[in-house]
Amino acid sequence: MNKENLQLDRQGNLRHFLTIEGLNRVLLTEILDMAESFSGVSERTVKKVPLLRGKTIVNLFFEASTRTRTTFELAAKRLSADVLNINIPASATSKGETLLDTLRNLEAMHCDMFVIRHPNSGAAHFIARHAASHISIINAGDGRHAHPTQALLDMFTIRRCKPSFHNLCVAIVGDMMHSRVARSQIHALSTLGVREIRAIAPRTLIPAAAETLGVHVYHDLREGLRDVEVVIMLRLQHERMRGASLPSEHEYFQLFGLTEDKLALAHPEVIIMHPGPINRGVEIDSTIADGPRSVILQQVAHGTAVRMAVMARAIGPHAVESGAGDR
Amino acid sequence: MNKENLQLDRQGNLRHFLTIEGLNRVLLTEILDMAESFSGVSERTVKKVPLLRGKTIVNLFFEASTRTRTTFELAAKRLSADVLNINIPASATSKGETLLDTLRNLEAMHCDMFVIRHPNSGAAHFIARHAASHISIINAGDGRHAHPTQALLDMFTIRRCKPSFHNLCVAIVGDMMHSRVARSQIHALSTLGVREIRAIAPRTLIPAAAETLGVHVYHDLREGLRDVEVVIMLRLQHERMRGASLPSEHEYFQLFGLTEDKLALAHPEVIIMHPGPINRGVEIDSTIADGPRSVILQQVAHGTAVRMAVMARAIGPHAVESGAGDR
Amino acid sequence: MNKENLQLDRQGNLRHFLTIEGLNRVLLTEILDMAESFSGVSERTVKKVPLLRGKTIVNLFFEASTRTRTTFELAAKRLSADVLNINIPASATSKGETLLDTLRNLEAMHCDMFVIRHPNSGAAHFIARHAASHISIINAGDGRHAHPTQALLDMFTIRRCKPSFHNLCVAIVGDMMHSRVARSQIHALSTLGVREIRAIAPRTLIPAAAETLGVHVYHDLREGLRDVEVVIMLRLQHERMRGASLPSEHEYFQLFGLTEDKLALAHPEVIIMHPGPINRGVEIDSTIADGPRSVILQQVAHGTAVRMAVMARAIGPHAVESGAGDR
Repeated sequence: MNKENLQLDRQGNLRHFLTIEGLNRVLLTEILDMAESFSGVSERTVKKVPLLRGKTIVNLFFEASTRTRTTFELAAKRLSADVLNINIPASATSKGETLLDTLRNLEAMHCDMFVIRHPNSGAAHFIARHAASHISIINAGDGRHAHPTQALLDMFTIRRCKPSFHNLCVAIVGDMMHSRVARSQIHALSTLGVREIRAIAPRTLIPAAAETLGVHVYHDLREGLRDVEVVIMLRLQHERMRGASLPSEHEYFQLFGLTEDKLALAHPEVIIMHPGPINRGVEIDSTIADGPRSVILQQVAHGTAVRMAVMARAIGPHAVESGAGDR
Repeated sequence: MNKENLQLDRQGNLRHFLTIEGLNRVLLTEILDMAESFSGVSERTVKKVPLLRGKTIVNLFFEASTRTRTTFELAAKRLSADVLNINIPASATSKGETLLDTLRNLEAMHCDMFVIRHPNSGAAHFIARHAASHISIINAGDGRHAHPTQALLDMFTIRRCKPSFHNLCVAIVGDMMHSRVARSQIHALSTLGVREIRAIAPRTLIPAAAETLGVHVYHDLREGLRDVEVVIMLRLQHERMRGASLPSEHEYFQLFGLTEDKLALAHPEVIIMHPGPINRGVEIDSTIADGPRSVILQQVAHGTAVRMAVMARAIGPHAVESGAGDR
Repeated sequence: MNKENLQLDRQGNLRHFLTIEGLNRVLLTEILDMAESFSGVSERTVKKVPLLRGKTIVNLFFEASTRTRTTFELAAKRLSADVLNINIPASATSKGETLLDTLRNLEAMHCDMFVIRHPNSGAAHFIARHAASHISIINAGDGRHAHPTQALLDMFTIRRCKPSFHNLCVAIVGDMMHSRVARSQIHALSTLGVREIRAIAPRTLIPAAAETLGVHVYHDLREGLRDVEVVIMLRLQHERMRGASLPSEHEYFQLFGLTEDKLALAHPEVIIMHPGPINRGVEIDSTIADGPRSVILQQVAHGTAVRMAVMARAIGPHAVESGAGDR
């Protein structure tokens, strides 16, 4: 069974959400449409729908992340599911109990969904491959591999701001080498049919495989920004600075930090995105992050709706109904 | 915009609850009345009311406190709200993400209320000043500044035990210098119109400004206790002992520890209060803490009802209705 | 008041669940019957019953245990109770606040049940002895003393697999000396009337009192396994290895590890149990743990139903009704 098919049941319904790869435009669009219908829920007085009442969703985090855990917890609660938060340092499972034993135990408790974050690339796939048939796995970030709900909320945000994906030119700026977010974004943008994807970064931060994904590589920010309609900034991990990959924060900002003068080269209606948390003055100037073209906080707002849609799609009433024969 | 008005909307309804300062007697009394109606809820078989169903309340703690976090979590759950617990070491926000970025993110998730505890005085005000219009802030203790829900539950407890605030003589005993609780209590007692407030402590633990607040200062516990009807003990922080402010726990107890013989000088129907946790044998003798005049556990019980009232008042159905035009 | 009676009210209804000792066969059977009715709940689409709606259950853990905390949290949520998780390092209570002060505070907040895990034997009894009349205590493991919900879910598992407890021969294998699980299992098996209980372990890991409990002691695994119908493996704590009690993991496995060839001596329909987490290749071979005679994951599944039954029995509508006069 290859990566692509693992996510879908025989009828083509979403079973796990591990990566954008292998999901087609129709399915991604259906999830975005469902997210559209949920985005109103968070603005109501009663911010809940009873769709997943009585379901148990486990946040299984092998890497600490208050921020990501919170967004999934919120999405699950707004769908009326019960949530268990379990933090397991990745080191712990190697000692006492194997990862699979931990999984088997949670499965036996009749949980419905595991939201997994893990420092190892491929961890969510590994778990999905071994999970019991009644469990859905959502990948909340695995190593340098994928972070598909982030990519999907980015697509939702673009769709809200732009008339269509068709004919769009999108630039991703920053450390693509170590970014699971960028990898998922590139797959999503390709699948949804944008005209051009540009990757802008120093040579040391662009993976060798970038061009095989159909991405145009630029090492000069001014050149790469010319006429783009969407700029997606990536977070620069501080630990890269200390290594050999980069000279200094100051020098990085001079060359690859997004500033007003550089942005003037982009399309007049350009929007600025960032998965957060922002390093102000490192990869982005504060006036831009807080300025009128920034949609960074809209991304956060859309995150709840998109995660609700992914969860509902995988284990909601419709999912169970249509996929019943297969699961 | 000054501190006082920040808490109220233009119609004078409660928007944030940051400090007792600037809240008038009518408003405090209305909250206490509402708490009275909630105090029955915790004694029912089903300890819940659906008042805040579908609301999201975030416990945002920049200072660890299981005890305080628990009381707010309980109050929120008894109002049927969804609760997210987020612990952020105060040091962490200085590094990666600014405090305001953290706030903006939680706002974007359409949360309704932040319950804030922070080691810096003024943190809750700072956050309220910058929060989006749909967010209510509750101060759960900021540095040495204020702890208004604690003060209000103390007032609730006094009101349950005494016929009226009028004509009452109340003594606050202990480390007033470093106490956010004492500061809030003094404002609440003044606003509710007690006859006399006494502060009893060693010279090193009384702030210079005490007398400007209308408080009568005593440095002798026996003298200060004479005829008082309410004694509020403060917790002595162990770290004060190690500093230059105080000689030793033993010597402190000799002079300022509450014992039966000293308490004999107070009014015959005196009640003893303490915000907890108690240092037995340091600021209070166990026989008094557990004795018939102690209302320390009633304070805890009232804490849930009072916090429910503050939350409901700020974001409950009535709040939204009456304040709708302004928010 | 002796240990036995502390758990029951005057009408003989369950008030606390501290140990299997002193609970009779009728009561244990009634709880197992109730668990049977709950075991279907976890397999439904909506995995919840409203039995404890509006009740507050506090997981009060003085010893870290994600696994056990999760099982109780899940059981409580499936009964629709509100759950508070409080982790208190055992060292912390000795400093600031006494254990009883912590209890009094939680009682005052009108909680209904404390699920206690504590490193000291007798801690749950101590707390039950001092708890207010409206609080039920569930022992989730205290030192080397008892772990009664684990023992009861084991009995549930045996009952599901075997026609009756009568005439059954059960072997418990491993470190009985330090095992609260084994102690509770022996009491449960005796009360439910099994024909024979065997304890199989090295001399250093069998308590002197074992035979007074009616247990037949074996120091040879092959000999002890002969014709047994149920094998309960105990987890070998790694710290025992480092002490003087045992030679090495390898040598232990040679002598007391459960392998196919040794198991061939048991009854043909033998079932294998283990409280988890498993040390694969130390006390049990992986092929057995994952093989057809293993019911280890069924144990986990039954854990939720059994814990739901214990909770409902102690504070559910029936409990309140029938025990009303006494509490």
